[in-house]
Amino acid sequence: MTRKCIKNGTIVTASDTFFGDILVDDGIIVMIGVDLDAEGAEIVDASGCYVFPGGIDPHTHLDMPFGGTVTIDDFESGTIAAAYGGTTTIVDFCLTTKGKPLASAVNAWHAKSKEKAVIDYGFHLMVSEVTDDVLYELPKMIEEEGITSLKVFMAYKNVLQADDGTLYRTLLLAKEHGALVMVHAENGDVIDYLVKQALSLGQTDPIYHALTRPPELEGEATGRAAGLTGLADSQLYVVHVTCAQAVNAIAEARMKGLRVFGETCPQYLTLDRTYLERLDFEGAKYVWSPPLREPEHQQALWDALWNGQLQTVGSDQCSFNFKGQKELGRGDFSKIPNGGPTIEDRFSLLYSEGVRKGRLTLHKFVDVVSTTSAKLFGLFPQKGTIAIGSDADIVIFDPMIERTLSAATHHMKVDYNAFEGMQVVGEPVSVLVRGEFVIRNKTFVGKPGSGQYLHRKRFGEQHKLPAVPSNGYAIT
Amino acid sequence: MTRKCIKNGTIVTASDTFFGDILVDDGIIVMIGVDLDAEGAEIVDASGCYVFPGGIDPHTHLDMPFGGTVTIDDFESGTIAAAYGGTTTIVDFCLTTKGKPLASAVNAWHAKSKEKAVIDYGFHLMVSEVTDDVLYELPKMIEEEGITSLKVFMAYKNVLQADDGTLYRTLLLAKEHGALVMVHAENGDVIDYLVKQALSLGQTDPIYHALTRPPELEGEATGRAAGLTGLADSQLYVVHVTCAQAVNAIAEARMKGLRVFGETCPQYLTLDRTYLERLDFEGAKYVWSPPLREPEHQQALWDALWNGQLQTVGSDQCSFNFKGQKELGRGDFSKIPNGGPTIEDRFSLLYSEGVRKGRLTLHKFVDVVSTTSAKLFGLFPQKGTIAIGSDADIVIFDPMIERTLSAATHHMKVDYNAFEGMQVVGEPVSVLVRGEFVIRNKTFVGKPGSGQYLHRKRFGEQHKLPAVPSNGYAIT
Amino acid sequence: MTRKCIKNGTIVTASDTFFGDILVDDGIIVMIGVDLDAEGAEIVDASGCYVFPGGIDPHTHLDMPFGGTVTIDDFESGTIAAAYGGTTTIVDFCLTTKGKPLASAVNAWHAKSKEKAVIDYGFHLMVSEVTDDVLYELPKMIEEEGITSLKVFMAYKNVLQADDGTLYRTLLLAKEHGALVMVHAENGDVIDYLVKQALSLGQTDPIYHALTRPPELEGEATGRAAGLTGLADSQLYVVHVTCAQAVNAIAEARMKGLRVFGETCPQYLTLDRTYLERLDFEGAKYVWSPPLREPEHQQALWDALWNGQLQTVGSDQCSFNFKGQKELGRGDFSKIPNGGPTIEDRFSLLYSEGVRKGRLTLHKFVDVVSTTSAKLFGLFPQKGTIAIGSDADIVIFDPMIERTLSAATHHMKVDYNAFEGMQVVGEPVSVLVRGEFVIRNKTFVGKPGSGQYLHRKRFGEQHKLPAVPSNGYAIT
Amino acid sequence: MTRKCIKNGTIVTASDTFFGDILVDDGIIVMIGVDLDAEGAEIVDASGCYVFPGGIDPHTHLDMPFGGTVTIDDFESGTIAAAYGGTTTIVDFCLTTKGKPLASAVNAWHAKSKEKAVIDYGFHLMVSEVTDDVLYELPKMIEEEGITSLKVFMAYKNVLQADDGTLYRTLLLAKEHGALVMVHAENGDVIDYLVKQALSLGQTDPIYHALTRPPELEGEATGRAAGLTGLADSQLYVVHVTCAQAVNAIAEARMKGLRVFGETCPQYLTLDRTYLERLDFEGAKYVWSPPLREPEHQQALWDALWNGQLQTVGSDQCSFNFKGQKELGRGDFSKIPNGGPTIEDRFSLLYSEGVRKGRLTLHKFVDVVSTTSAKLFGLFPQKGTIAIGSDADIVIFDPMIERTLSAATHHMKVDYNAFEGMQVVGEPVSVLVRGEFVIRNKTFVGKPGSGQYLHRKRFGEQHKLPAVPSNGYAIT
Repeated sequence: MTRKCIKNGTIVTASDTFFGDILVDDGIIVMIGVDLDAEGAEIVDASGCYVFPGGIDPHTHLDMPFGGTVTIDDFESGTIAAAYGGTTTIVDFCLTTKGKPLASAVNAWHAKSKEKAVIDYGFHLMVSEVTDDVLYELPKMIEEEGITSLKVFMAYKNVLQADDGTLYRTLLLAKEHGALVMVHAENGDVIDYLVKQALSLGQTDPIYHALTRPPELEGEATGRAAGLTGLADSQLYVVHVTCAQAVNAIAEARMKGLRVFGETCPQYLTLDRTYLERLDFEGAKYVWSPPLREPEHQQALWDALWNGQLQTVGSDQCSFNFKGQKELGRGDFSKIPNGGPTIEDRFSLLYSEGVRKGRLTLHKFVDVVSTTSAKLFGLFPQKGTIAIGSDADIVIFDPMIERTLSAATHHMKVDYNAFEGMQVVGEPVSVLVRGEFVIRNKTFVGKPGSGQYLHRKRFGEQHKLPAVPSNGYAIT
Repeated sequence: MTRKCIKNGTIVTASDTFFGDILVDDGIIVMIGVDLDAEGAEIVDASGCYVFPGGIDPHTHLDMPFGGTVTIDDFESGTIAAAYGGTTTIVDFCLTTKGKPLASAVNAWHAKSKEKAVIDYGFHLMVSEVTDDVLYELPKMIEEEGITSLKVFMAYKNVLQADDGTLYRTLLLAKEHGALVMVHAENGDVIDYLVKQALSLGQTDPIYHALTRPPELEGEATGRAAGLTGLADSQLYVVHVTCAQAVNAIAEARMKGLRVFGETCPQYLTLDRTYLERLDFEGAKYVWSPPLREPEHQQALWDALWNGQLQTVGSDQCSFNFKGQKELGRGDFSKIPNGGPTIEDRFSLLYSEGVRKGRLTLHKFVDVVSTTSAKLFGLFPQKGTIAIGSDADIVIFDPMIERTLSAATHHMKVDYNAFEGMQVVGEPVSVLVRGEFVIRNKTFVGKPGSGQYLHRKRFGEQHKLPAVPSNGYAIT
Repeated sequence: MTRKCIKNGTIVTASDTFFGDILVDDGIIVMIGVDLDAEGAEIVDASGCYVFPGGIDPHTHLDMPFGGTVTIDDFESGTIAAAYGGTTTIVDFCLTTKGKPLASAVNAWHAKSKEKAVIDYGFHLMVSEVTDDVLYELPKMIEEEGITSLKVFMAYKNVLQADDGTLYRTLLLAKEHGALVMVHAENGDVIDYLVKQALSLGQTDPIYHALTRPPELEGEATGRAAGLTGLADSQLYVVHVTCAQAVNAIAEARMKGLRVFGETCPQYLTLDRTYLERLDFEGAKYVWSPPLREPEHQQALWDALWNGQLQTVGSDQCSFNFKGQKELGRGDFSKIPNGGPTIEDRFSLLYSEGVRKGRLTLHKFVDVVSTTSAKLFGLFPQKGTIAIGSDADIVIFDPMIERTLSAATHHMKVDYNAFEGMQVVGEPVSVLVRGEFVIRNKTFVGKPGSGQYLHRKRFGEQHKLPAVPSNGYAIT
Repeated sequence: MTRKCIKNGTIVTASDTFFGDILVDDGIIVMIGVDLDAEGAEIVDASGCYVFPGGIDPHTHLDMPFGGTVTIDDFESGTIAAAYGGTTTIVDFCLTTKGKPLASAVNAWHAKSKEKAVIDYGFHLMVSEVTDDVLYELPKMIEEEGITSLKVFMAYKNVLQADDGTLYRTLLLAKEHGALVMVHAENGDVIDYLVKQALSLGQTDPIYHALTRPPELEGEATGRAAGLTGLADSQLYVVHVTCAQAVNAIAEARMKGLRVFGETCPQYLTLDRTYLERLDFEGAKYVWSPPLREPEHQQALWDALWNGQLQTVGSDQCSFNFKGQKELGRGDFSKIPNGGPTIEDRFSLLYSEGVRKGRLTLHKFVDVVSTTSAKLFGLFPQKGTIAIGSDADIVIFDPMIERTLSAATHHMKVDYNAFEGMQVVGEPVSVLVRGEFVIRNKTFVGKPGSGQYLHRKRFGEQHKLPAVPSNGYAIT
């Protein structure tokens, strides 16, 4: 049945909250109102629930090789878990290799995802060098593939790290072709020394991962990237901001009118550095880069979401089993695969820790967990909101359910949960993508391969004044 | 006919833009969609037009005594002009007198407005002293009258100015009772001296109004008020921000997580200090407090709207005829009544200078001209958006019309236009309040007294988590 | 004998440290060198000792009425104690009364000091109003009395407090006539309310003195005064800076090139807010305004002395007996006379806590405890250094003596010591004023009335380029 | 004759100004006073003159290979010119080569200087890599050669540039061994791209040198180096600061208590970017790195000297003939040798533009042109002041002489003067090094090879508390 009517929910967007019904036809929202005539439509009862736009996770690493292993969650288990968690769109990072065509990387990513994804997805493209080949190929990737965001690493020396000249050229290219540059902002040169030095002193436990990546080095690199963005008159999105120093660097740039944006992640909002000190190598589960910080940074991040200096919350999903993967780093923290499983709990954690605890309004919650990612990454208004003409990517969320996050109940393939034991309030009970149930009454009912690849708009198109059409949809 | 269907417009909210129809019943928006069945409804064609929520002007002075005279536009001419300009709600300043009951002032304001207003309206209440009487009466005004915003003047020494102790106590009261404190932030003590000194030197022309109120004194007072807000853990709204110094003070407070908000006005975004130098005493037309600034401050204000450090644009409508009123200050700039006519052109100017010139997205435009004022001043979601259950306060805006602002064509009673000769693109063609036309095809069709007084919610209620109702509307 | 030779000391100035002798003739330093021929001169052995310029205390309140009582140390006991402590010059605050001639206040201060002072002294003049009389009389006080520093209070509402207009006018007068404006920077209006509110809640203990004067109110007022200084293009000296907020406000002003200077005091560098919680009303001994702060502010003050954002250390000597004076505030902290005894230990505390603990170099120590005060307050090079032609105001300081500060051994009249029990290293063993011993081998040998009144130069004269004289002394 | 008496001068130090005589014995200052008995001493008349400590130039490049050529002034012509200009000590940069022993570079520098220098000199050592060899050899250089300052380049990619890891390790080494790290702070990676890009667009004129090195890139690198210094708890000296952005970065670090210092140069204080636009390739004469800036940066630099955020003024002497050397860059600005001739005019320019124009006091002038360099670089109190026991490095300076700077009259070998035509007031008439005339009545009377190499103390020794000796000189 292609027609559905979601009834009697409390519908929430980045701007509005109201009680009503949503009529969906052919996967598109066609009507919103009270007491809609649902004749011919499947009735979906949302009474007692919030009806949110599906979450957009702008930052995932599924089926990605890293440090000699591969993330355990692929586009199937990863997107199923995402769906369970209330996320209906992801943008995954496509890793390129120096010297190889960009297209080969993109094709590889299509191959990883096409048959597996149960929700919609797009790709960011990593840029690690700006050669003549890249200069030739990049505009095509933007145009033909709709890959309108480019990732540059300022860390991972000798592996992923690009130098400042490459970052600057990427910023110029992005400006020219309408893309958004994303940076991992940490000073990789200094970290490289600190890591080697720690290891040479026999400091091999997971906590040294955090101690060799101090927040000053994130703040410095963030300021540097923002400064280069200003010089290039381009646009920047700082991924996984973890600390007050980086927030300040972003805020300072924005105060000057620079187009600089920042993302934080649920782990930085809720966990802290002490987790890395857990015994029996359990600390390895909490190895992210940048690392978890001392607790006072959490307030800085919540404040920044509130006052608008950070705009989105991504998961940075990058899961490795504790057994056999994280364990690669026993005796040498630098060999612990970086990252953790967060794709599933991002949405609920933000609601429970943010909205329920009075740190975010419902609207700001929707904004950071969905809408602004759609706007920044060229998916709006197809994705990221509940509005006429938008895809019916919808989360029916019961705000009364109390539950405990746990590997025992999660749907990722990975063998531990980063938020194990944490109590949250609220749960997505049903999730629709383009009007079709993927999760229904907490049960996965979708099918691998049903997710569609998203050819995204260029950066800035959403800022352009839409023509006022006599029919059809405005592009913003 | 109580049922209307606004068809084929490009509907814009603070979050969304989409093509569609709006069905209104009994003054309330009940359905939004494509190709709505409008049977039994009056059809309003909006094709080729934007359909915006009605503008909310959080800052007007209608029929207000000032400096021995009274603003020329009262609740009739003022609200008619507002409606022509796309504004469907105002919050007007109710002036109190030391030693007199607050209720007497509020009653006076009801008397001024009740039979005249053609759009909906609320009142802010001025607080100039905190006596036992005020302590007793203020909570009643908040509770019974729904007056949930309190204005304190840091300038106009010996007239309206309150000292810092009064400001601080007002902040504490506001926190306790759920109100928002508004300040006119300029250092009145120093200005008082500068004005006297200028006059003693024979510096009597209008330009000296600006020169005796330098931006440093606005920045200082803004920072002072923000600091006291932090100390009181209260909430502050800085009216008519004009300069980089004040923007910085607000941003610094917000970065610390303080609940500090700021408003600017169209005149500060588009005019500058040179206007005060116009010959033949014409400069008097441009006497506002704070004064128009040097042109470089305009960019700081636009940037602050963009990056979210300023949240609203009010008109500070306070009109005096040039003849007979502004002229009171010939030979003594300090006797020029402060203020100007802006209620009518606020909305269109923001669209034309902001959206058309790429400084604001359509969403941000709606946000600053309507939605956030509703949220801050306890009117949301009744006002400030186009959503199910909200009042059908709607502006049908033709973005193609080019016109020239002028006293010859405006609808205010005042004898000059502050933006005389300025070209704008876009015009509200029809305006509805609670589903009834006030302006239809550029013609006033409303009637005085049809505007309703708004009993506003307390500050912060909109930040509280709404209960999820089984029916009825969520309160946020 | 008018000729003395101080031999074999380690002589220290704000710039230099060297081993040698100093020859003094008629109270003036005439020769400095190694193995000076001391024929006809009294030999003073300084071997094993530092030879410092005499301390200059720019901030004392001797024999001053306050809160219905009078500071217990007058110009006799106060200056004797100062001399014991290594201070050879003070500048005391002359309190004026609104409506009375300035001259009457100055004359009263001359009467208090003339027969009593054992070291040299000048006066600052308090300005609490700017009337026609003040406008007429002030330039005469500057010219004829050499009183080139003017104090304005931003606190002590309804008592000493001046409004911002008065502060601004004083800044303009100071600029015109070559004076330096000093401010007590706290927001008196808000403090007035906080104090009343605390008392109304029965919060009467000394600790509420600190809690009703939070550092935010000092930071705010400091920034306000600095801003007005910039607007007036004048010069400002902020007395008794206690907290990071005020340091930041001063630093920010100086970064813009403003002539803003700051003083801190030994109590703020070494004591903290917990002292006010001492039992049996002992907390009253530690009641200063601004109050002692939380310990972390101490580091901000030391850093600011090091990096040059604070320039001097004054004592703010203002002593009241615990018995009979501080006790006036039992049951009402607001009646505790503000201030404490610090004139005697300022110099040794700075050496012991500053130099010995590696926070200040020897040169910076001399600079903040003596030289810069001389330069700012128009006493240089007569006072504040060891140089040819300067007054032989000299401290012979044994840096090896370890001792305990205590009321049992101090020389002030007051019945307690604010630093009771604190261990210091180093002690002034002999002190000369204009070449005459006042303290000799730790024994007072001076006589009341021998101190001379100092007619001080205008502010800025020391910044003017000296003429290069063919004989005589350069004036800088 | 080894004994001299400099009579009747106005003697100026970083702290004092007084009229008197200086007695010198065996090159050491032994007595200072009025009417000194000069029997057996050569009388040097300084009446009508200032007597300053000899200037210390902490930043010179004599006889240095760069860009395929060699600076035209070597240790003979360079130090003669320095002496004419009032400078009696230089610290020159010793360039090392990757992979070669540090000792070989130091030995080469000794060979360049030993037979030629007419004033005293020390060496800084460049660090471009931290290998095992460097780790082994560097402590020896510090200990045995007294080379206690290490230079790291953040610019000149692929030539001199070190990466951040090397900078950080050098900071750690400096902390451990008591050295001061110096940085050339510009973002070399981005500049490298900008230069290539400009050349590829045919932008080859000298002005593009400035346009490809914007101030943002200096500010960024300065902040980065300061941040790493804080992380390493080490000490940093930023050479040739040119712009407000870099000043702010230094000030911010110092406000946090970091040991960060900054130097500017006379060219940045007096010249601006327009010089690079001079016709006929004359702009090449003004090619420095960092480049000359827009005029508004000059005020920021003067302010920073005044408020203590910059501490020294070095020349960055690095002279190349216009003919044959600068001309190498015709048609390609990147081939213009960087640098200019400034060693001779540094002292007089600072006096004339700084003291005479009221921007610096006489004391601050001495401080920045001599004393603080001595303190930071381990030369104090042997050098940098006029005090008992210090070397008699003395400048007799006639402040009344008006003259015009010009290649026609300067004493450098280079064929142009960077300040050609600039009027200055004041001139060093006689200059003594260790009590011997090098310049006498404006005539060079010294001899090559008479300058002595300076084995410098470690950083921080001057901050340690000196023992109080019973004889001999204190070490601070």
